[in-house]
Amino acid sequence: MYDGGKMLNNKEWELINIAAGKDNLHIGDDCAVWDEKNLVVTTDHMCENIHFDFSFMTPESVGWRLMAANASDIISMGSKPTHFLLNIAVPSSEMEIAKKIISGIKSFAGKYNIKIMGGDTTGSQFFMVGATMFGEKPEKPLLRSGAKPGDFVYISSPTGLSKCGLLHLQYSTNGFELSKKKFLYPDPFETVPSSFECMSSAIDISDSLISELILLAKSSKVHIKIDLDKIPIEKEVEQTAKLFKMNVEELVLGSGEEFSLIFTSDREIKQGYKIGRVYETKEPEVEVFNKNGVFDLSRIAVFTHFG
Amino acid sequence: MYDGGKMLNNKEWELINIAAGKDNLHIGDDCAVWDEKNLVVTTDHMCENIHFDFSFMTPESVGWRLMAANASDIISMGSKPTHFLLNIAVPSSEMEIAKKIISGIKSFAGKYNIKIMGGDTTGSQFFMVGATMFGEKPEKPLLRSGAKPGDFVYISSPTGLSKCGLLHLQYSTNGFELSKKKFLYPDPFETVPSSFECMSSAIDISDSLISELILLAKSSKVHIKIDLDKIPIEKEVEQTAKLFKMNVEELVLGSGEEFSLIFTSDREIKQGYKIGRVYETKEPEVEVFNKNGVFDLSRIAVFTHFG
Repeated sequence: MYDGGKMLNNKEWELINIAAGKDNLHIGDDCAVWDEKNLVVTTDHMCENIHFDFSFMTPESVGWRLMAANASDIISMGSKPTHFLLNIAVPSSEMEIAKKIISGIKSFAGKYNIKIMGGDTTGSQFFMVGATMFGEKPEKPLLRSGAKPGDFVYISSPTGLSKCGLLHLQYSTNGFELSKKKFLYPDPFETVPSSFECMSSAIDISDSLISELILLAKSSKVHIKIDLDKIPIEKEVEQTAKLFKMNVEELVLGSGEEFSLIFTSDREIKQGYKIGRVYETKEPEVEVFNKNGVFDLSRIAVFTHFG
Repeated sequence: MYDGGKMLNNKEWELINIAAGKDNLHIGDDCAVWDEKNLVVTTDHMCENIHFDFSFMTPESVGWRLMAANASDIISMGSKPTHFLLNIAVPSSEMEIAKKIISGIKSFAGKYNIKIMGGDTTGSQFFMVGATMFGEKPEKPLLRSGAKPGDFVYISSPTGLSKCGLLHLQYSTNGFELSKKKFLYPDPFETVPSSFECMSSAIDISDSLISELILLAKSSKVHIKIDLDKIPIEKEVEQTAKLFKMNVEELVLGSGEEFSLIFTSDREIKQGYKIGRVYETKEPEVEVFNKNGVFDLSRIAVFTHFG
């Protein structure tokens, strides 16, 4: 069953860190920063029935989402994707589906002029698609560790639609086209800030707004306070919450694969939505409040605890 | 069942070429050559039950082989691997096996000082391991298309042991340690030529000696004649052929994942074993002969036909 690829959850980096040992200078952000080559590099793979499910997703959307996920990592460093390598594992009798996945990959790559350099194809029991993507290293790569006390916290677009789209596709709801499009064809370029100049840190929303805020707080060793009432709510998110008898907050804070950005800045800028502020702390933490007081994060199903 | 990863066989590049469209300047060799960044890049992925099988392989050997396969691609361009990214997909209850795979990866990376830059970990139904590996672009990257009429054809080491190792592991034969080691822990560095200077082309033996010779002939648009009697036969290869009632030639020409090199040179050099010569042709072709005349290639099970 589709679980948003969270089976390993907090263990995401454990294996990579074991592999890296002490030699892990490059590791832990959305991208590796390769100084000598002036590159930022990311790699993201997706497995059938874990990260995608053909019972409610088209093969084209699977290819598109692979590219969106990788591009989002590059963008979150303040860069732009330029080249990629493709890995695809294909069950032997499924070449036609594979070609449709490739077609989705080409749509994205063509639209944003990302050049393929190579890749590999193998047989397998289930589909697996992966990409390694590159961008020029920006003058000052945006890291997760850059948030400073006093900074303001922004999101580049309202969150929640992706999870709504997933629900409507799984339950075959009529309508909700915006949500379905956001889930099937997310586009990190649509919400990319016009300038990264005044930003101190950034992270892309892969798992959920709340879990990425936690990663940001941990990496920057800060306390982050979020004002729930400042997060704009999309109409379809409200309607979906009503339909599925969920909290709006669960959708807004818990929606994964949004591929928009959280970023911080020491000044008030006119990009995205200002939703919170950064404070000094000894114990990194994320606190969410609204007009009624502190919001209980245990109410959010997709909540990644501090490990 | 393990089939050496050949399920897609000649289709290996079809999907990547579809993805590339006309924009495929970089594609088709063991590595992509990235001129602007002075890099050669390769990516190789392996899936459980297709490329590896825990019923007769240790997890450590799976990690080692992943690195060997990628390093072999880099070496075959005349370069040396320096950095890599790691992808690993792990069934949720199998973290201990995953750590052993990582241990095999670290052994190889540590031995040859290849630095990990990052990677991704996801859940999946079966194990999948992959790497993207980088090396400095050599002054003159060795391409498959560089063989010229008149060139001599060399192999960097005798072939056949890898397939023998696979057979002995699958059938639990006693002894044959050299073969088993060659299959479980192949090391492309052991047979790397001391200089690439006089070489006109190179390709690493991933699928089989014969299928790589065919790729070389096609890429270089030449006719290659191979003298079977010039290929040295390892003792264990002879013994294995006897034991399994096979032709020695089937093992020598058909053994995959050898991760040694075929290369060509316009002069007689003292590296590896001279096994043939390159001729002009209108129809690229590989001809194998021995003292009895032309050898019938249809006798080789792992024979990739001209497409």
